[in-house]
Amino acid sequence: MLNNNPLVRRIVRLALEEDIGTGDATTEAVVPEGTRAAARVVAKAPGVLAGGPVAAMVLEEVDRGIAFEQVVPEGAEVAAGDVVMRASGDARALLVAERTLLDFVMRLGGVATATRRFAARLAGCKTVLLDTRKTTPGLRVLEKYATRIGGARNHRMSLAGGVLVKNNHLALVGDLKDAIRRAKSDSPSLCRVEVEVRTMEEVKRAIEAGADVLLLDHMTREEVREVIDYCNWKVKVEVSGNVTPDAAAAVAEVGPDFVSAGAVTHSAPWMDFAMYLERIEG
Amino acid sequence: MLNNNPLVRRIVRLALEEDIGTGDATTEAVVPEGTRAAARVVAKAPGVLAGGPVAAMVLEEVDRGIAFEQVVPEGAEVAAGDVVMRASGDARALLVAERTLLDFVMRLGGVATATRRFAARLAGCKTVLLDTRKTTPGLRVLEKYATRIGGARNHRMSLAGGVLVKNNHLALVGDLKDAIRRAKSDSPSLCRVEVEVRTMEEVKRAIEAGADVLLLDHMTREEVREVIDYCNWKVKVEVSGNVTPDAAAAVAEVGPDFVSAGAVTHSAPWMDFAMYLERIEG
Amino acid sequence: MLNNNPLVRRIVRLALEEDIGTGDATTEAVVPEGTRAAARVVAKAPGVLAGGPVAAMVLEEVDRGIAFEQVVPEGAEVAAGDVVMRASGDARALLVAERTLLDFVMRLGGVATATRRFAARLAGCKTVLLDTRKTTPGLRVLEKYATRIGGARNHRMSLAGGVLVKNNHLALVGDLKDAIRRAKSDSPSLCRVEVEVRTMEEVKRAIEAGADVLLLDHMTREEVREVIDYCNWKVKVEVSGNVTPDAAAAVAEVGPDFVSAGAVTHSAPWMDFAMYLERIEG
Amino acid sequence: MLNNNPLVRRIVRLALEEDIGTGDATTEAVVPEGTRAAARVVAKAPGVLAGGPVAAMVLEEVDRGIAFEQVVPEGAEVAAGDVVMRASGDARALLVAERTLLDFVMRLGGVATATRRFAARLAGCKTVLLDTRKTTPGLRVLEKYATRIGGARNHRMSLAGGVLVKNNHLALVGDLKDAIRRAKSDSPSLCRVEVEVRTMEEVKRAIEAGADVLLLDHMTREEVREVIDYCNWKVKVEVSGNVTPDAAAAVAEVGPDFVSAGAVTHSAPWMDFAMYLERIEG
Amino acid sequence: MLNNNPLVRRIVRLALEEDIGTGDATTEAVVPEGTRAAARVVAKAPGVLAGGPVAAMVLEEVDRGIAFEQVVPEGAEVAAGDVVMRASGDARALLVAERTLLDFVMRLGGVATATRRFAARLAGCKTVLLDTRKTTPGLRVLEKYATRIGGARNHRMSLAGGVLVKNNHLALVGDLKDAIRRAKSDSPSLCRVEVEVRTMEEVKRAIEAGADVLLLDHMTREEVREVIDYCNWKVKVEVSGNVTPDAAAAVAEVGPDFVSAGAVTHSAPWMDFAMYLERIEG
Amino acid sequence: MLNNNPLVRRIVRLALEEDIGTGDATTEAVVPEGTRAAARVVAKAPGVLAGGPVAAMVLEEVDRGIAFEQVVPEGAEVAAGDVVMRASGDARALLVAERTLLDFVMRLGGVATATRRFAARLAGCKTVLLDTRKTTPGLRVLEKYATRIGGARNHRMSLAGGVLVKNNHLALVGDLKDAIRRAKSDSPSLCRVEVEVRTMEEVKRAIEAGADVLLLDHMTREEVREVIDYCNWKVKVEVSGNVTPDAAAAVAEVGPDFVSAGAVTHSAPWMDFAMYLERIEG
Repeated sequence: MLNNNPLVRRIVRLALEEDIGTGDATTEAVVPEGTRAAARVVAKAPGVLAGGPVAAMVLEEVDRGIAFEQVVPEGAEVAAGDVVMRASGDARALLVAERTLLDFVMRLGGVATATRRFAARLAGCKTVLLDTRKTTPGLRVLEKYATRIGGARNHRMSLAGGVLVKNNHLALVGDLKDAIRRAKSDSPSLCRVEVEVRTMEEVKRAIEAGADVLLLDHMTREEVREVIDYCNWKVKVEVSGNVTPDAAAAVAEVGPDFVSAGAVTHSAPWMDFAMYLERIEG
Repeated sequence: MLNNNPLVRRIVRLALEEDIGTGDATTEAVVPEGTRAAARVVAKAPGVLAGGPVAAMVLEEVDRGIAFEQVVPEGAEVAAGDVVMRASGDARALLVAERTLLDFVMRLGGVATATRRFAARLAGCKTVLLDTRKTTPGLRVLEKYATRIGGARNHRMSLAGGVLVKNNHLALVGDLKDAIRRAKSDSPSLCRVEVEVRTMEEVKRAIEAGADVLLLDHMTREEVREVIDYCNWKVKVEVSGNVTPDAAAAVAEVGPDFVSAGAVTHSAPWMDFAMYLERIEG
Repeated sequence: MLNNNPLVRRIVRLALEEDIGTGDATTEAVVPEGTRAAARVVAKAPGVLAGGPVAAMVLEEVDRGIAFEQVVPEGAEVAAGDVVMRASGDARALLVAERTLLDFVMRLGGVATATRRFAARLAGCKTVLLDTRKTTPGLRVLEKYATRIGGARNHRMSLAGGVLVKNNHLALVGDLKDAIRRAKSDSPSLCRVEVEVRTMEEVKRAIEAGADVLLLDHMTREEVREVIDYCNWKVKVEVSGNVTPDAAAAVAEVGPDFVSAGAVTHSAPWMDFAMYLERIEG
Repeated sequence: MLNNNPLVRRIVRLALEEDIGTGDATTEAVVPEGTRAAARVVAKAPGVLAGGPVAAMVLEEVDRGIAFEQVVPEGAEVAAGDVVMRASGDARALLVAERTLLDFVMRLGGVATATRRFAARLAGCKTVLLDTRKTTPGLRVLEKYATRIGGARNHRMSLAGGVLVKNNHLALVGDLKDAIRRAKSDSPSLCRVEVEVRTMEEVKRAIEAGADVLLLDHMTREEVREVIDYCNWKVKVEVSGNVTPDAAAAVAEVGPDFVSAGAVTHSAPWMDFAMYLERIEG
Repeated sequence: MLNNNPLVRRIVRLALEEDIGTGDATTEAVVPEGTRAAARVVAKAPGVLAGGPVAAMVLEEVDRGIAFEQVVPEGAEVAAGDVVMRASGDARALLVAERTLLDFVMRLGGVATATRRFAARLAGCKTVLLDTRKTTPGLRVLEKYATRIGGARNHRMSLAGGVLVKNNHLALVGDLKDAIRRAKSDSPSLCRVEVEVRTMEEVKRAIEAGADVLLLDHMTREEVREVIDYCNWKVKVEVSGNVTPDAAAAVAEVGPDFVSAGAVTHSAPWMDFAMYLERIEG
Repeated sequence: MLNNNPLVRRIVRLALEEDIGTGDATTEAVVPEGTRAAARVVAKAPGVLAGGPVAAMVLEEVDRGIAFEQVVPEGAEVAAGDVVMRASGDARALLVAERTLLDFVMRLGGVATATRRFAARLAGCKTVLLDTRKTTPGLRVLEKYATRIGGARNHRMSLAGGVLVKNNHLALVGDLKDAIRRAKSDSPSLCRVEVEVRTMEEVKRAIEAGADVLLLDHMTREEVREVIDYCNWKVKVEVSGNVTPDAAAAVAEVGPDFVSAGAVTHSAPWMDFAMYLERIEG
């Protein structure tokens, strides 16, 4: 679905514009027009592959004549040295696209890998790992695609994709129940209403007002357990707040529906890839 | 200079478009029109602040009527709990801008902090830390601004910002000296010509052909020393290749002009910030 | 919130670009530079005002120096002859903006009026009027704003704003329950899951699979009543299908949560407005 | 010619961006990658087909691999149940495009149908039906294409497409003759000069000053006849002003060159279409 | 009116993007943040000033805080050394804007000057100088503004701004009269219809078919006189075809309504300007 | 490499948008849908061809189905009457593209021709001709491509493509040596540092501070010789300042590395081309 998404195409174009600028000074001077090449993208460290369709889009934006093949499927665990993609065509175009292509694939592979590692800690629980909106500006759709590849479920994709009444809203409007009621009557009918709660009292009031999901931020495991018992599965429960994999695994034992972790996007180190070219006849 | 840069404005707009989409479902339902608020941005972990001008631009794009003040200067070391920025104005606008603003500031603070820590390991050497083009797609100008804030010098900003003949070029055109000569005669006259070299033989040929800078990728410290001795300061020497701070400090002792490190951008964890709102009368 | 929305700004800009093109041939030739004018926007027929913030944005895009005042609030019922907005400033700019401003306000007033009239037929029922995605391409956010002004609640704002499994999906994937289960596990966690059902058998299967909302398309009032009885308020029920105000009022008596009507957007005639200018001294 | 028009492509892209946003939550979750489908677009009510080339452009923007065929030609009268277009290819892409495609075709069919019905009332007269600039913002080129399909002639396409001195201009510059003279000497040489006149005195002055076309707004049929007699075919005459088909037919008997009607665009109800998908093997 | 024109704003933005790219490497390194400066734009050769509003727009796009004053009015004849504009504000912003501002003003001054010189040769004749569509891609609106400043009248501004049936059309459709008739019935009603004619026979046929303007391309002065006599002022006559000022003056004696000259745009050398900065206190 | 450059694609699109606007009024009315044509682009004066890839891009943007062939290679000297390009396909699309295609090719051929003529005067010298940033706004990449075709070398492509400390910088920061030192330490490492110098004293200070290139503006030939002697080839020397071909040839005798000339872009008259269509069967 990445191919169909206009936001993805726009970040691909912006990325190419910022890297190409007035032109590739090196390639233009050094590589003769008409030279043709074969390229392979190779993993330099183990991890989870994500971003092949974006690599294809980068190449297509630079030159529609480039042939592209994704050798390893999205979401596969790859080892250092594995060839994951191949492309061939105009050598200058491949050189122009190289860094942008790699920067996307390295970033998305990093996110997918970090998510896979995190999600593995929740294996066997009913608790589902969610991502957050703490994503790199401009790469929201891509990074949330990578978290899905890694095994998380998306929380909301944007401010338009659901209702989440947070402390900052409550600080402005005062009454929790009133806020929830307005959220339930005035937001789009296909949005769920989630509310950030800090105390058992707020939990009760939120449920009375009709919240669909409770967001427990920075609660202890015991507090989480107490909320879940109170909710008795009528309302969904999400736990967040600087959740590490270890902390997530611990809290998952008490059975929240979701734990959400910004770290799988905002602190995922990139997965290393390189592109190697060789000359071919045309 | 970020304010003047059209590429920066475009990523700010794209980031807002992807987060706002068809509108902020929560704020629109919950927060009455005309509500006014004061916001403070607070560091939740220690680090180096970078990105205040981008925060200002995010707010300005959402609502020109918001007042903004950067309390702590760019590049300052901040502690957890420090208030670094303040803003006030329309509460709905502040809520709409919140996540995008924080995502920029967290990312750039992360890069600045990682760079500062890395550069600290080179303190006292003549060797200068360079960044790379391994930056998040669309954020090149911003992330390279953050590395400067952190204490690095920029390598080239884009494919248009200098000539770097890499192995992929050489794989296509064959002769190193011929490639360098063409680079020197056919590229813009204000670009330096840097060449990636792997052997002492290539070092010699590169210098004969007139290279301005040599890029030593994955050489040992002893090999680097040998190259530097040979160059005798007539040609600049850059060392790269999965350089960690420790490895960089070690190689710096033999005196290259530059070490370059992709890690300061591609693997910098974000620096944590939060925004807190309170209602004010307007 | 329209002011903050990038999609709104883009359609405003596109509308101005298509009307201005290479320039206003008349005004440029006829009206001397520096002429100043006061403008009033006057309703030529009764209806519900909507779109003042867009009028302001049109003027701001043409000339930031124009003063604008909305005399009558959004959502007010106005009579023929009522002055609803005033603006003053550079006369050429006002002439350049006139048609685009009016075209937005006439369209949005038309939608708000049609919605208000439709919603009035449901007064006193618990059934809420929903809009649809049958909106003019490019004006989605604006037209759905106008339906809210008119008294409807928004259904989903876009393909990203909720899950609605329709007949076309079911034609492709076969099993209703399997489709709903995948929708519930793989879509963003803050999206509700709605399913289009045609028979009582499908109603039962949809509820078993966990659907949040049922969409009853082209069912008779008796069939709707039967579904509602079966659901017993555990699942929400929406009725759609060429619903006229009369048909909606009739079906509302049996108590669905929602009726949705495309007609309030796709077949709303425009509300007529004119702009009158007079010369003022500067 | 729609295919060549950049304004058309921009509204198509904007329409897709607003509907797709961060992605189609339903399709992505429910329809497996690689599913293929055949789609048919079917009229659900009688009317005049317009917009096939836009439907093709919508599909092409979503996925270049979709095959498209327009079964019924532009401008044909179709009956409820008629299949008017067929497409086949990636099922997810077809689902993503569905609503946007239909919204364009329904709007343009509505305009073409309303125009055809209006123009039919003028059959047999020399009077030609003109459209106006009262078109939906962003859809000017498309809606004026649809009025042509329906049998109208375009008035001016934009502020750049001709000179029309209206009352608002005259309110600012005072003298009618002076305004016309400046319009004739300072506007592009291939623009005709039309002037809105309200009295016989103004008619005389406009003709003396060299107006090419007179716009009679809200004149009675007798007044129109008097103007036409006076003009004696030396100057063209256009009648406007809330002209209904009946009123237009009546005034056409006295022989104006043109009647113009905003209603064919601003108050045309949409023509109903649906898209039906079925699964095919790839 | 330049300020209101979206096409002008787009070329200004594109020009700044291409010159700024990833940032002004010199200014950023050399000029400290916060430095303030006063700038004056000085003519380095005599000519006709045009483009002040564009200069203002360039500065505004770079930094809204810069104060700008146009010292000499548009269209004034200036001498070498004349200060024509002044600006003051952030020194870095002024340096970033300098080249783009000058490139616009030099280009537009060049066009205005060439036009003024050409038009002077027609002084005293009734023949009006027209420009053409041979303008620099992207600068159409600006260059045609400059020809007006220089004393020409605009021909059509774009393909949408009038009908001109040229030899290439006739080569495709065969019959001249048929082409004109279709042009008269199917084009927007406020467009004049001009036809390129090469022989007296074509002149007659064009007039019979109702052409509004005849375009005589590469006819001798005697042939032009013969056409004008034949037309007897009922149809307007335009003479074109590599018209130099001398040739234009000669042909003007026989009295065509218009001569058109591409040279005033496509071969106008730039008018030289420089910008000088000095430091001021803030 | 033009095909890969996003800035080139943007100016091509902008040029088409400004010429097409709401549509080609003539072609739409006169040329029947489905007409097919063959087009040839013919030189009407001798010169150097440049811009074939842009012509191809213009056609592709208008209609991907047009076949295009460049008959004469880029950089060839052509004579009046030579056919340089051929295209065939939809006749309406060819007519829509005609003027924009020609305007690009005429402008770029003009620049290439002027550059070739200028460069010829330096034949046999070691001095290389450089272009400047005095290019038409929006056409930087294209015009600098044309100067390369003509035989010049590019100076810097943008403010981001190298460091050039000019008098305006020095007027703000005072000390020449300090400015150069900051330029050398704080600019991207692959940028050379050039400094504008006016006196021998400044030459000495610039060299001491480490400048890579000296820009001698408005120096006499003797002064230039003196600087070159002093530099003794350790620093490169560029001569600029209203350099005519004759003056350039004269100064080249004393051996500067570069002379730069704005005239090859800003005062190059266009090279004349025409496009001729003929009807073909499809």
